[in-house]
Amino acid sequence: MNKKDYLKNPVEHIGIKSFDSTKIINAMRKMSFSARDTAHAADLLGEMLNDAGCTIFLCIAGSTSAAGCMQIYADMVKYNMVDAVVATGATIVDMDFFEALGFEHYRGSPNVDDGQLRQLYIDRIYDTFIDEEQLQICDNTVKKIADSLEPRPYSSREFIREMGRFLVDNAKKRDSLVQAAYENDVPVFCPAFSDSSAGFGLVKHQLENPADHVSIDSVKDFRELTQIKINSPVSGLFMIGGGVPKNFVQDTVVCAEVLGKKVDMHKYAVQITVADVRDGACSSSTLAEARSWGKVAAGRNQMVYAEATSVLPLIISYAYHKKDWQNRKKHHWTKIFQ
Amino acid sequence: MNKKDYLKNPVEHIGIKSFDSTKIINAMRKMSFSARDTAHAADLLGEMLNDAGCTIFLCIAGSTSAAGCMQIYADMVKYNMVDAVVATGATIVDMDFFEALGFEHYRGSPNVDDGQLRQLYIDRIYDTFIDEEQLQICDNTVKKIADSLEPRPYSSREFIREMGRFLVDNAKKRDSLVQAAYENDVPVFCPAFSDSSAGFGLVKHQLENPADHVSIDSVKDFRELTQIKINSPVSGLFMIGGGVPKNFVQDTVVCAEVLGKKVDMHKYAVQITVADVRDGACSSSTLAEARSWGKVAAGRNQMVYAEATSVLPLIISYAYHKKDWQNRKKHHWTKIFQ
Amino acid sequence: MNKKDYLKNPVEHIGIKSFDSTKIINAMRKMSFSARDTAHAADLLGEMLNDAGCTIFLCIAGSTSAAGCMQIYADMVKYNMVDAVVATGATIVDMDFFEALGFEHYRGSPNVDDGQLRQLYIDRIYDTFIDEEQLQICDNTVKKIADSLEPRPYSSREFIREMGRFLVDNAKKRDSLVQAAYENDVPVFCPAFSDSSAGFGLVKHQLENPADHVSIDSVKDFRELTQIKINSPVSGLFMIGGGVPKNFVQDTVVCAEVLGKKVDMHKYAVQITVADVRDGACSSSTLAEARSWGKVAAGRNQMVYAEATSVLPLIISYAYHKKDWQNRKKHHWTKIFQ
Amino acid sequence: MNKKDYLKNPVEHIGIKSFDSTKIINAMRKMSFSARDTAHAADLLGEMLNDAGCTIFLCIAGSTSAAGCMQIYADMVKYNMVDAVVATGATIVDMDFFEALGFEHYRGSPNVDDGQLRQLYIDRIYDTFIDEEQLQICDNTVKKIADSLEPRPYSSREFIREMGRFLVDNAKKRDSLVQAAYENDVPVFCPAFSDSSAGFGLVKHQLENPADHVSIDSVKDFRELTQIKINSPVSGLFMIGGGVPKNFVQDTVVCAEVLGKKVDMHKYAVQITVADVRDGACSSSTLAEARSWGKVAAGRNQMVYAEATSVLPLIISYAYHKKDWQNRKKHHWTKIFQ
Repeated sequence: MNKKDYLKNPVEHIGIKSFDSTKIINAMRKMSFSARDTAHAADLLGEMLNDAGCTIFLCIAGSTSAAGCMQIYADMVKYNMVDAVVATGATIVDMDFFEALGFEHYRGSPNVDDGQLRQLYIDRIYDTFIDEEQLQICDNTVKKIADSLEPRPYSSREFIREMGRFLVDNAKKRDSLVQAAYENDVPVFCPAFSDSSAGFGLVKHQLENPADHVSIDSVKDFRELTQIKINSPVSGLFMIGGGVPKNFVQDTVVCAEVLGKKVDMHKYAVQITVADVRDGACSSSTLAEARSWGKVAAGRNQMVYAEATSVLPLIISYAYHKKDWQNRKKHHWTKIFQ
Repeated sequence: MNKKDYLKNPVEHIGIKSFDSTKIINAMRKMSFSARDTAHAADLLGEMLNDAGCTIFLCIAGSTSAAGCMQIYADMVKYNMVDAVVATGATIVDMDFFEALGFEHYRGSPNVDDGQLRQLYIDRIYDTFIDEEQLQICDNTVKKIADSLEPRPYSSREFIREMGRFLVDNAKKRDSLVQAAYENDVPVFCPAFSDSSAGFGLVKHQLENPADHVSIDSVKDFRELTQIKINSPVSGLFMIGGGVPKNFVQDTVVCAEVLGKKVDMHKYAVQITVADVRDGACSSSTLAEARSWGKVAAGRNQMVYAEATSVLPLIISYAYHKKDWQNRKKHHWTKIFQ
Repeated sequence: MNKKDYLKNPVEHIGIKSFDSTKIINAMRKMSFSARDTAHAADLLGEMLNDAGCTIFLCIAGSTSAAGCMQIYADMVKYNMVDAVVATGATIVDMDFFEALGFEHYRGSPNVDDGQLRQLYIDRIYDTFIDEEQLQICDNTVKKIADSLEPRPYSSREFIREMGRFLVDNAKKRDSLVQAAYENDVPVFCPAFSDSSAGFGLVKHQLENPADHVSIDSVKDFRELTQIKINSPVSGLFMIGGGVPKNFVQDTVVCAEVLGKKVDMHKYAVQITVADVRDGACSSSTLAEARSWGKVAAGRNQMVYAEATSVLPLIISYAYHKKDWQNRKKHHWTKIFQ
Repeated sequence: MNKKDYLKNPVEHIGIKSFDSTKIINAMRKMSFSARDTAHAADLLGEMLNDAGCTIFLCIAGSTSAAGCMQIYADMVKYNMVDAVVATGATIVDMDFFEALGFEHYRGSPNVDDGQLRQLYIDRIYDTFIDEEQLQICDNTVKKIADSLEPRPYSSREFIREMGRFLVDNAKKRDSLVQAAYENDVPVFCPAFSDSSAGFGLVKHQLENPADHVSIDSVKDFRELTQIKINSPVSGLFMIGGGVPKNFVQDTVVCAEVLGKKVDMHKYAVQITVADVRDGACSSSTLAEARSWGKVAAGRNQMVYAEATSVLPLIISYAYHKKDWQNRKKHHWTKIFQ
């Protein structure tokens, strides 16, 4: 097989408006196990949307954007369900920005010869394929953006905002998360920004500009994210996967305290994950455990044990059709940094 | 809290006709990860339904019947999607027959004081509660049925058929799997029948009738199930969970060989499970592994990694609305044993 | 590759006397996560061994016998750490009895062409290979034993006892679990006995003797196992995997109650498993949940989240070297059935 | 219970010299499932140690340092088994540096009232407790170090080196990973450094020094780590958990390519994890998948499916006693940055 044979069936991103999951969620609420947990997660998102002044943080780890959930995240921003995003670099750069540049992910298989893929410059994420040559164009676009900026330390949020600005004029695919966030004043943070396609571009940028260059200051990220929390009397977390985004956003409560500001714990928390609590890692730690750290309040949190592509579309389609977002005021958190 | 406070919110079983998952499954087919696996499982069930002469075995392990999927299984029989059932004793007796007698499961929580539940005679399955006193009535009903039968070894299928016959006159809830199977000549096998509420009733029956009593011969189960396989040029497996049912039905291919009959491997196989392949147990073993044993053919099988309550309703609602079952001939396998 | 190339490296069963894990377990007791759980499981086994009159039930599900733990189970019987065994048919017949007949399991790989294995009549369990032609000899041996017995319903325990008797004269490998259990009056139960190599042999036996034959009555298994529980003022469970064995042995407490005998819950319980509690199945259900059913007492139980081959050798080597078994009286439970 | 009652049993870190796992690993090599995988991982580490010029990267995610494995990591550096470390901020700052300051972790339980813990300022990691007031001292120490440095962007490696220098004079507990790495010229990278106790200290530092301050440039981390890879003709990865460290170190191969340097893929790779491949996340992605990305070579890699506290001590004790590290030349990679 040649490269084209592998890369012929693009992943198509599910649209939350294209079907209505209201009846399913309503039925799942009366069931048990993961079905009921899924309905409860949808209900908690509804409570967040209806809680006046509540800042909703969307946290994304893992590869669900490559796997067909990319439009969901962009729509959550567009339909005012999200006030700030904390994500892995891969989600924001390698997947979302990458598709905004006109590239695609492809439906593949986990049962393939990875040596052959390597020779063809095809990268694999479980059952999904990517053209590595296109990824390199993505790297270089990040470099070009860095080259165009004033040399100084930036938060990842500041840099991603420039990526959004770039897309306004240059996107081949409208409707990316990066662009929607830019246009809606929703800040996007990647606490480990270099750990992505952006890292390659920025390393190149720094090596070509050894004396004076853009750097990414993750401390500044933490300051800015905490500032949002300090300005939010009420907050909720909607998390896909765990990892650094989960820990980072939870820590804002503690960070505010460190800075002498008394803030409330995150009042709501939902996490969709397959991670297992018994390994003691943050990704898998329960939301009850987060309470001991003073990060997440008791009572309004739900772990949903599922691979997210199977339940997230149901939850967000439900939220879209329930329309709680329609009367919600916009936070425009980006503006506090201007 | 007293007993009534714990047992006030019954589990309501999701109806596959009450919503239409066609659009969701169609969208999931173009995604990746578990979403695409779910769509592929739905497509394979469709292929089984359209393959003239294919015998479809439904295998059920775990507690999904208690968790809101009970009506799905009954409807699969009613709408001619299933020709034989292989299940755990708990699924058939403690859950399905139990509710047919007029009892219910209740929505509870995993975070409770199990000592208190014990005192109140409430049994817990993860987040679901059962009134143990009602379970005892179920045990006794099984005993009464045994008392009424001619003393000799029975296959579990023969005995469950008597339970179905009993329900025709005595059911408080119509539409149980046991009754639907009886009425549609769909045989139901429990290879570990005593490992259930039925076990309690049968032990009592034997102790009261030490000389001459009903016994359950699991060898006969194996003979009968293999006979169905021998009569089926084509067969497919639709499995929720793994355990004994999965192994038992797969082994029929080998058993036929042992008996000198050359039969084809199961042509189709779907399994929905959260079990992990790396522990080497049968529940988690891949369908590829089953091929080495000569049990499952290559090419038309799919593992779906999910807790079944979250994806099974989507798959079966899709199958129901696609209507492939309408033109299917009925096998009436029960009749070959008469 | 031909068959010999696949079947050249036999699995060698680890010996609990060949190394001393005392220091490791002592260190693990002061750690966290699975290390501490492992040490705690070893301590609970020690408590069971020191509790005068405590009946210890060993429950085995999964394929650890094929994977190098077979000698551990035989030694637990030999060194008086176990009073009754409840296991899957595969563990007892396909693995243990199979090797007693002189056959072996082979170290293989999960990354192979299962179609090729099929052609060579090699069966695969994850990364382990079996010669299917040898398995058929095992089936036939079971048939021969059945042919030699008086036709009537047997409990699996009665039948397995005959297999042990057969091995006394015919074993190629001494020291199997089946033979050790026979020689030490330790009863062995397989509640789903037909779901194994034995099933093939017994089906053949019944077909050749349609009028008068051996049958396996799993109700009798339940009666006998409950009788042991009724005679044990104190009892403990040591479980590898879950499945039918776990549920069956736990249910003896309830069964005793059904029979009008007031018995205590199982006082101790250890389970080594990788199953995940969130799917609501019995294999994964916590021992706390079992308390709500009145099966397992609070306080002295431990789930160890691990694939058993990695931690079981440490636990049993520790128990062997601690020598608590030396002063233990033997129960000889087999004798109550004679 | 008051605070002292919760914090009375400190976690004691297992010593790889205090027991000898050679016999166990040798036995596990002839078994199957995770036992054999564990032995294979130990063998691959041996191969890395014996491959002249091979740079060994130790990657640590999750909380094993808090759970009793802290001394293992320090000893791997001390006994020349590791040439560079890539870890989460929590591992390096909240756990290792924290204990170097004289504090401890405590053995607790997952079944506690997290609200009560919150009131007492006790943080919980699954079954392990931490005194949050001591963590704040750790934060402040990081701040003091930052205050003492020339204001400019630092890589996390540069900053952690200053933490090591600080410990030489101020450590209450010798033998920390941070100090051992400093003394042995082993660079330590935290690609998401702010996502830890260090983040709190650095935020404070920046707020008190708004004009001129220390920042942490994760792009510089990536440049430096890639420089080590470029200077290493051969390299191997020994990974506990996944997350950002796993991805970051794997990406150095691609980053080198981006910079126009042709380097070989990582020749060896071991990962110990409980993550499940089917969720498509990096933590769980197989090493075969990494091959498609050109990151990890075929043939010499092993996933060990286990919670690390249970198998890591066996693997490293084996490596220690096999003494392959004795003849190994030291890389002193820190020196290339001076």
